Amino acid sequence: MNHVRARQRRPTMADVAREAGVALRTVSRYVNGDDTVGPDFAERIRAAIDSLDFKVDERARQLRSGRTGTIGAAVRNISEAHPVLSAIEATARAAGLMVVAMSTEDDERLERDAVRSMSGRRMDGIIIEPIAENHGYLQAEIDSGLPVVAFDRPATGVDVDTVLTDNPGGIAQAFEHLYRRGHRRIAYIGDDERIYTGHVRAMAFRTCAAAAGAPHDGLVHPGPVDQSRIAAALASVRHDPDPVTAVITGNASTTVAAIRALGEDFGAVALVGFDDFPLADLLRPGLTVVAQGDEEIGRTAFELFRSRLEHPDRPIERVVVPTRLIIRGSGEIPLYP
Amino acid sequence: MNHVRARQRRPTMADVAREAGVALRTVSRYVNGDDTVGPDFAERIRAAIDSLDFKVDERARQLRSGRTGTIGAAVRNISEAHPVLSAIEATARAAGLMVVAMSTEDDERLERDAVRSMSGRRMDGIIIEPIAENHGYLQAEIDSGLPVVAFDRPATGVDVDTVLTDNPGGIAQAFEHLYRRGHRRIAYIGDDERIYTGHVRAMAFRTCAAAAGAPHDGLVHPGPVDQSRIAAALASVRHDPDPVTAVITGNASTTVAAIRALGEDFGAVALVGFDDFPLADLLRPGLTVVAQGDEEIGRTAFELFRSRLEHPDRPIERVVVPTRLIIRGSGEIPLYP
Repeated sequence: MNHVRARQRRPTMADVAREAGVALRTVSRYVNGDDTVGPDFAERIRAAIDSLDFKVDERARQLRSGRTGTIGAAVRNISEAHPVLSAIEATARAAGLMVVAMSTEDDERLERDAVRSMSGRRMDGIIIEPIAENHGYLQAEIDSGLPVVAFDRPATGVDVDTVLTDNPGGIAQAFEHLYRRGHRRIAYIGDDERIYTGHVRAMAFRTCAAAAGAPHDGLVHPGPVDQSRIAAALASVRHDPDPVTAVITGNASTTVAAIRALGEDFGAVALVGFDDFPLADLLRPGLTVVAQGDEEIGRTAFELFRSRLEHPDRPIERVVVPTRLIIRGSGEIPLYP
Repeated sequence: MNHVRARQRRPTMADVAREAGVALRTVSRYVNGDDTVGPDFAERIRAAIDSLDFKVDERARQLRSGRTGTIGAAVRNISEAHPVLSAIEATARAAGLMVVAMSTEDDERLERDAVRSMSGRRMDGIIIEPIAENHGYLQAEIDSGLPVVAFDRPATGVDVDTVLTDNPGGIAQAFEHLYRRGHRRIAYIGDDERIYTGHVRAMAFRTCAAAAGAPHDGLVHPGPVDQSRIAAALASVRHDPDPVTAVITGNASTTVAAIRALGEDFGAVALVGFDDFPLADLLRPGLTVVAQGDEEIGRTAFELFRSRLEHPDRPIERVVVPTRLIIRGSGEIPLYP
């Protein structure tokens, strides 16, 4: 097979131009992402590219245009459900860009490796869900003109466009929902406070409880997302001399661990989860959640990237996206069954 | 900030060698992924790279070494849960490689774009969940020495290493489980037969039913994974003059759609799903599934990639990974409640 194939010369842009019956310059504009190429020409060029199996030499193209039509996304995990990444992909695709993603696994070294690899591969920009304690390492990229957008958590030590959830507002929605239904002993079980979202959500809970005059000593349990840690926290607040009647969980993994720990008792204590997840509506009772605006967060992150590309000197923006309470049953079980 | 940074020269390998107190040649070997660099030297080089914030010029390095330490994964969807991708990442990471992933959305054009983009960015290899009807376009890559491994579905028109689930075996496990419990009217609702897995699973079901002498006219419903199509298929087999007592669903999305369509009736008809998914155990009843060996599929795909890299001329391999029946309740409800 090899020797047969080897005789075939790799098709060039000139071959594509000939096949499509358009000027070489038009093919070049199309290939370099110039969207002023008319739809009719674009369609003929696309067909010619497919029929010749023409491949752009990305490295040559990158050197010419300085743009690659590709954004790098450094996210917590690419093999778990990630609705924000889904929205980033959908918005990017609608704009004719591709998304290349790498997992950071909430590990600083992996985050740096991912950003290094992406920057070395000349992405048009990087959208990052930051984990590292200090993102000073990004400064050289930013200075070289690479658009960087952070979401979910702020990047520390660098000034970049950022999209965050309204964490305090979301916790207040959960707390007030339970408080209005008569709950006075409410526990919070969440993520490690060394993680930004873990910290701000736990702090927001303390603030809500204090403002409502609800004592919360021993009822705030931040820590690692670990089944046995969460089961123990749940047992401690339920078997308190003055047991809780309601629990707020600080993120989706903690919520799932809490439901597993409750087992047959799921539904015996009111539960509101921060962050929605697939199938939460199929549980019995359905899970009441404070949903993040995943679609809006992803779309905003992409739009900040694009406007940074077009206006490199515009002021840095920080966008906060509101949350939404979704009532499904688990947060509305009667106070005294 | 810009002018201050601009004065800083980008650190070179020589700077790293000086900082780490090792020979330049050792840094070069380390950076080019030579794993014979001793752990002590490797650790000093890593520390120096971090402290200087040294960045490899990937393009220069790729030209030198021909290897990049990165595999491209072209998968159905990077923003949905993907346990095989998770296993590929874990195995690759343990071997010191990074995974860069792109979504194909089961769209031939996106698949070609993703492969083109990866190939242009000089990955060490590509692991692909193929969708295109003809993968002849991959031949030039393969001939140029790029290892390509297919999983979940075979690539057509090219001869590449492939890892598949034992689809007929899995369907037989589901069918026999239900048949042994007395079910004789069993329906199959699955994916579109134009998709490889949709086709082989539907065919396997017909074979099982025929072998058992169970009539299945009007009981096999392949088609798009679409809530209303699946609800209609379910209604038709349940309201048949001779209604079904059990249903097999052909993939996870179909299973979830079927559970939604059943609503309060989930548990009124025996249900076995092909493919497990997160939280299936938290449903009531728990969902009985035929689980694919996701971890083994991902690990095998990576191992085939690596052995191809080391032995470019070894024969093509095709590995079939067995499935496993997980009993949780939905497949074991009594035949006559």
